[in-house]
Amino acid sequence: MFNISLFVAEIEEQLKLWRREFHKFPEASWTEYRTACEVVKNLETMGYEVLWGPSVVSAEARMGLPPQEILEQSWQRALKQGADPKIINTMQGGFTGVLGLFKTCRPGPTVALRFELDALEIAESDAESHYPFREKFSSLNPGIMHACGHDGHLAIGLGVAKILIKLKEHLAGTIKLIFQPAEEGVRGAQSMVEAGVLDDVDYFISGHIGLGVNNIGEIVCGSEGFLDTSKYDVEYIGSSAHAGHNPENGKNALLAAATAIINLHAISRHGQGSSRVNVGTLNSGNGRNLIPSWAKYTLETRGETEEINKYMVEKAKRIIQGAAEMYDVSFNIRKMGSAHGAVSNDQLISLVAKTLDDISDVKKVHLKKQFTASEDVTNMMRLVQDKGGLATYLLFGSEITGGHHQGNFDFDEKVLPIATRVLLETILRIVRLPERGE
Amino acid sequence: MFNISLFVAEIEEQLKLWRREFHKFPEASWTEYRTACEVVKNLETMGYEVLWGPSVVSAEARMGLPPQEILEQSWQRALKQGADPKIINTMQGGFTGVLGLFKTCRPGPTVALRFELDALEIAESDAESHYPFREKFSSLNPGIMHACGHDGHLAIGLGVAKILIKLKEHLAGTIKLIFQPAEEGVRGAQSMVEAGVLDDVDYFISGHIGLGVNNIGEIVCGSEGFLDTSKYDVEYIGSSAHAGHNPENGKNALLAAATAIINLHAISRHGQGSSRVNVGTLNSGNGRNLIPSWAKYTLETRGETEEINKYMVEKAKRIIQGAAEMYDVSFNIRKMGSAHGAVSNDQLISLVAKTLDDISDVKKVHLKKQFTASEDVTNMMRLVQDKGGLATYLLFGSEITGGHHQGNFDFDEKVLPIATRVLLETILRIVRLPERGE
Amino acid sequence: MFNISLFVAEIEEQLKLWRREFHKFPEASWTEYRTACEVVKNLETMGYEVLWGPSVVSAEARMGLPPQEILEQSWQRALKQGADPKIINTMQGGFTGVLGLFKTCRPGPTVALRFELDALEIAESDAESHYPFREKFSSLNPGIMHACGHDGHLAIGLGVAKILIKLKEHLAGTIKLIFQPAEEGVRGAQSMVEAGVLDDVDYFISGHIGLGVNNIGEIVCGSEGFLDTSKYDVEYIGSSAHAGHNPENGKNALLAAATAIINLHAISRHGQGSSRVNVGTLNSGNGRNLIPSWAKYTLETRGETEEINKYMVEKAKRIIQGAAEMYDVSFNIRKMGSAHGAVSNDQLISLVAKTLDDISDVKKVHLKKQFTASEDVTNMMRLVQDKGGLATYLLFGSEITGGHHQGNFDFDEKVLPIATRVLLETILRIVRLPERGE
Amino acid sequence: MFNISLFVAEIEEQLKLWRREFHKFPEASWTEYRTACEVVKNLETMGYEVLWGPSVVSAEARMGLPPQEILEQSWQRALKQGADPKIINTMQGGFTGVLGLFKTCRPGPTVALRFELDALEIAESDAESHYPFREKFSSLNPGIMHACGHDGHLAIGLGVAKILIKLKEHLAGTIKLIFQPAEEGVRGAQSMVEAGVLDDVDYFISGHIGLGVNNIGEIVCGSEGFLDTSKYDVEYIGSSAHAGHNPENGKNALLAAATAIINLHAISRHGQGSSRVNVGTLNSGNGRNLIPSWAKYTLETRGETEEINKYMVEKAKRIIQGAAEMYDVSFNIRKMGSAHGAVSNDQLISLVAKTLDDISDVKKVHLKKQFTASEDVTNMMRLVQDKGGLATYLLFGSEITGGHHQGNFDFDEKVLPIATRVLLETILRIVRLPERGE
Repeated sequence: MFNISLFVAEIEEQLKLWRREFHKFPEASWTEYRTACEVVKNLETMGYEVLWGPSVVSAEARMGLPPQEILEQSWQRALKQGADPKIINTMQGGFTGVLGLFKTCRPGPTVALRFELDALEIAESDAESHYPFREKFSSLNPGIMHACGHDGHLAIGLGVAKILIKLKEHLAGTIKLIFQPAEEGVRGAQSMVEAGVLDDVDYFISGHIGLGVNNIGEIVCGSEGFLDTSKYDVEYIGSSAHAGHNPENGKNALLAAATAIINLHAISRHGQGSSRVNVGTLNSGNGRNLIPSWAKYTLETRGETEEINKYMVEKAKRIIQGAAEMYDVSFNIRKMGSAHGAVSNDQLISLVAKTLDDISDVKKVHLKKQFTASEDVTNMMRLVQDKGGLATYLLFGSEITGGHHQGNFDFDEKVLPIATRVLLETILRIVRLPERGE
Repeated sequence: MFNISLFVAEIEEQLKLWRREFHKFPEASWTEYRTACEVVKNLETMGYEVLWGPSVVSAEARMGLPPQEILEQSWQRALKQGADPKIINTMQGGFTGVLGLFKTCRPGPTVALRFELDALEIAESDAESHYPFREKFSSLNPGIMHACGHDGHLAIGLGVAKILIKLKEHLAGTIKLIFQPAEEGVRGAQSMVEAGVLDDVDYFISGHIGLGVNNIGEIVCGSEGFLDTSKYDVEYIGSSAHAGHNPENGKNALLAAATAIINLHAISRHGQGSSRVNVGTLNSGNGRNLIPSWAKYTLETRGETEEINKYMVEKAKRIIQGAAEMYDVSFNIRKMGSAHGAVSNDQLISLVAKTLDDISDVKKVHLKKQFTASEDVTNMMRLVQDKGGLATYLLFGSEITGGHHQGNFDFDEKVLPIATRVLLETILRIVRLPERGE
Repeated sequence: MFNISLFVAEIEEQLKLWRREFHKFPEASWTEYRTACEVVKNLETMGYEVLWGPSVVSAEARMGLPPQEILEQSWQRALKQGADPKIINTMQGGFTGVLGLFKTCRPGPTVALRFELDALEIAESDAESHYPFREKFSSLNPGIMHACGHDGHLAIGLGVAKILIKLKEHLAGTIKLIFQPAEEGVRGAQSMVEAGVLDDVDYFISGHIGLGVNNIGEIVCGSEGFLDTSKYDVEYIGSSAHAGHNPENGKNALLAAATAIINLHAISRHGQGSSRVNVGTLNSGNGRNLIPSWAKYTLETRGETEEINKYMVEKAKRIIQGAAEMYDVSFNIRKMGSAHGAVSNDQLISLVAKTLDDISDVKKVHLKKQFTASEDVTNMMRLVQDKGGLATYLLFGSEITGGHHQGNFDFDEKVLPIATRVLLETILRIVRLPERGE
Repeated sequence: MFNISLFVAEIEEQLKLWRREFHKFPEASWTEYRTACEVVKNLETMGYEVLWGPSVVSAEARMGLPPQEILEQSWQRALKQGADPKIINTMQGGFTGVLGLFKTCRPGPTVALRFELDALEIAESDAESHYPFREKFSSLNPGIMHACGHDGHLAIGLGVAKILIKLKEHLAGTIKLIFQPAEEGVRGAQSMVEAGVLDDVDYFISGHIGLGVNNIGEIVCGSEGFLDTSKYDVEYIGSSAHAGHNPENGKNALLAAATAIINLHAISRHGQGSSRVNVGTLNSGNGRNLIPSWAKYTLETRGETEEINKYMVEKAKRIIQGAAEMYDVSFNIRKMGSAHGAVSNDQLISLVAKTLDDISDVKKVHLKKQFTASEDVTNMMRLVQDKGGLATYLLFGSEITGGHHQGNFDFDEKVLPIATRVLLETILRIVRLPERGE
């Protein structure tokens, strides 16, 4: 017999330290060299078999990779910030996924957990009211910040890893701890799916801190209503001319983009369900007195179903092209991310719910919640489900300061031990050997 | 010897009567059956050789013809309003041009004058303050009105005709009095040009009442700055769908049109000179709760030069097409009118100016004025000039009530005898035989 | 004992005749003088107490009334087409609602049925393939057509009326047959609600032919997912100017409207549920060469909830106003219609479903369907429910040719006796006296 | 007697060195610390009385100043690149104008020449085909480049200065050499005007290399057709929200900007003359999946007359505001530059033309050219003319590689000695003492 509650209590301080260390060194999508290196080192120390780099990240399936220059600069920065060159060597060029493998060598199911490595390109608040700043663990990388809680997820992942392997005598089957790059922008999951990491998984569990579940001890056992989504970068290339002297010679890329943007938002609602469209950023032009010769913008579409998102994408492409033709500018559209809808399996939801009954820190349980956003974890969930396995996505309640993706985002660190315990107890329900004498 | 001043004084009342009669029976472009018939009858009575119908109007060169149904209804209305079926028979289907020919049979130059037959699709004011209404000669044809002064031009034309033929003993050369259909929308002149009516003309004179020259007795001898212009009707055809139930199935012709319209106005200014663009009317859709399946609009472009107008047309066509592609609707563009720039010949301007010196009613003379609008008289002027002749376009000053193309438009009838005399005296300078004994 | 099936069989031909007669004389919303008169005459002949005009239509609550001139012309047309002046006198000015009242004078519940009087401003097809045309009962009123099945509903209503009153010995309670004007555009229901017609109703039933239920014998017992909706007419008033001469003096109402329209469609989707927006028609401008001084368009918004529709309306008003300010034009917004969401009561759905079990012509039964459109019947349903009564909205399956609101719309007349029987049997379940001896 | 031709020949190599040195250290508008310092040092060495800083630059009249941070960084960079702290101390914060004064102390007119100090924020080409790169004098300041020829103007200015002061025995009156900051964006001239630098000037001469005059030895003696212009920076501030979860809570600054931009370009042409409008750059948004909470763009308007530019500005402000209201975002508009039209005085043009007759290197002379762009030299010209002086603006022909304001811009250095000589000879015509014995 053992007591998970006590094990977790023992590492409570460690969870907080991990979280804060990750928070101090945030790395944007596909450049999580230092973060991944820390994960590798920790898992190896604990006794996991650890794989990383191209063996667990399919090169072709990576979407929305930053330019080579950024990949290289970030790699150099990781070195300066203490990453082990022997480890991150094989990650170079954006192969930052990590797989921690623990085979009990007793027959049993394969259980996978998934955590995210990446931070956001958001400047962290330096207000005294911002907890990470006050406690001196705010971002050391200007313009980058863990503003969505992935630093917490990483701590939880290492916490689960640390305790689980101690219990190896009591377990059957195989545990896979997946640390995924580039969740932001739904860019990275597919690359680990296509590398085959999920192919043999029977039970898949992931989860998120916060997201509208606001109380410590409040847990959601499953999710549905993930929006199918596509991400594109669009570029218009026209030609410049002096705006006073010969404006008629210009081909105005900004007017093409402005026309496209308004009309993209005017794509008709779909009678069969929800849709979304957003142009989140636009940059254009070289100077006030020049016809703008270029414009770049970032687009995303979403749909309640795959069909609705396809409808949005098809309409969007028409508009992008038509606007280009209106202004005689050329264009290119680059796919930067993609995720599908998914629904947690009721069977696994029930199993989680039953587990929660026995955890006293859990105060309130919801079976399911509508996600109404997108997460590329769905690409993993769908693969597992397509192969006959079960998948679910949990939410771990925590008061959130400042809102997700804001410079003053923060969560309550009390969620770390609770989430760690929830995941551990759930896994144990699946892979624990029957106690002798039971 | 004879005194033009006295001749004109004798017909002053007649000029007014003609004007008012034409004003009562306004007919829109290409449907001026009754008007043309009156002109034919008057000219024949005076002794002119008169041609009309397809012999002076090239079928293929007619632009912006109304639908067959309108042509037919208007023809029937003309009959009811007293047109002679024998005369208007050959005008059927929109062949409403008239040519009055007077050959002196003495060698000499050919002088052509041009007047316009058509009225506008504007509802005439029935305010007491509106002179034609108060004097009971306002339009009997609802929604149609002589709101640009062509009724006055017609009276002047007949006045010139009446006096000129009386002077036949004193004249050499040939006089051509051209009564043109469909000046509004610059649609009709080209059809008489291509019928060859202008081919042998040495001197071409036309003119307009008002247009910013506001005083009785003020005359402009020549014009420049006519804008090169093109007129198009554009139609978008999409498909309808219920706006609540399945809006995604519609192809929204109105959104395509709205996008096109704004972007048409955003066509870049041209560094080499003035340009214009206007969408004057738009109609679209069958019902509030249906995705609009059709939209029609009327477009015109202008340019200070032919090259600039070509630039505008080329850009406009791109925008029209690109907007159609954005919304997956089909479209068609129909050319409805066209006129070029033209400049009055200085030599003829001088001749007019010299003539005016001797007319006491003329109080103020300007050699030239910038027209800054379009008139298809320019198609006639250019042909004459291209063949080595001289051409000018005069303005006859008059206070204008209500503005051109407004429902309460009116001019001062005192302009009629002055304009008649100016034209007569100018023609005489060209074709008068030297007095015996002089 | 009596057999509804036989009663209905007896009037089957009559149902068809009624339907075709109504189809021949379609009248648009608020001008259903002849139609209402026929209903009044029939109900009176059958023995109903009949009310119409201002006593059952609240003057102030009428939305989207046509101009006085149209109301008057339509009234004159109704007279010419056989309406009884004594009856339609009190309907003048758009008071076309009718209430047929049948009090059994035995204590019991009040049951209300509702039918619609109005047709659509759609030109009927004259293709040989169009059944009403081939059978010579197509619209005699050009540009107006029963293109949504209300002619069928009227026939069903009279059929129910005719049989029900024969059964008076077997019934308790009160029957109210409501014939509503101006359902199209959700304009009329509220006026009968506010006249108090529904105040004492315990059971409210209405229904529709077709709407996606395609088979004869297929019946839907209740509806939900009606969209909350608002209808507005918007007008922009700028000022005109000549597009060549002085375009800078114009205030372009069409550009304001075009800008508004595109941006209205670009109002952000709502995270809490479905929304809709449509600009169904736009008309603008007086001539190709004039800056358009006016523009009018018809707008509607919808929302899955009242809150979402309010959000749409609020955003729309901002955009309408902002676009006006951009072009320095004035504007007005006129509310033309409004309907809320509603949900059929499960209890009444069950009662209908149970009834259907005993009707052999009914082949397939659905308990509920998502409406995903708007219907002002919801204003009636909500009032009844707010006062403690039950309400439902049925769908009567029929193959539909050409689609609702299309010029070649048609339904299968076999639906008429089935729908009549379904309504009758349902009412009998509620108000039938227990058979003696039962 | 002396020979200007020989004097110029002596400094030909020096002109090239100056030009290349300035080219290597380009500084953007209002940050020309090092450049101004070099000018000060050279002028002082030559013997000029030199003023700089706030005494010749009015603080309040400076437009389009960069942020304090940029001003400071640039000042530090200037120090590193060799600027003398004693000199540039008083320039701190953007007071980079320099005035070189040479009083002959003999009675005579005051002649002012004006040269520009600033470079452009354009990255210089590093193609082998780019002459400055090949010859190793391309920009050492990344992203900044002399891409309009001001480096050449500075060399000419120093060349004129050097020779002129040698001739002091032969001259009367006063010479003012004005070195102006921030010509790009028409931001700087007004600040030297308002500091009074031009108040006593009788003859004002400035000029430009290239600008469509393509041959070495081709000179234009005067300019007209400068466009009146205004420059604004516009910012929209809305609020962000997650584009999937709760897009309805966002206030979309990008959609407001896109709407404004298109409609700004759609401002009606003006019937009285040319106008221009351009939005040269736009930046907006923080991330693909966030409603963009901010957007910034740079705007300029122009007009053939001050009235037309005022019309453009007034319409533009309406549109900027209306678009903000449509999307419920706040906005601010900041004036960044302004220049008026101006016309060179015929009298001074003639004087220049006469001077050119005697210069053998001058191959082709034009009296006047239409500028059709904007230059804040006009603010200086107008002041001088308003006070009764004469002003002109010359063009010095040179083949231009790559176009003005392009990263591969270059001119032919042969223009330097010619322009130097043209200016010197022209000044001498005005201020030279009569030769004794002449």
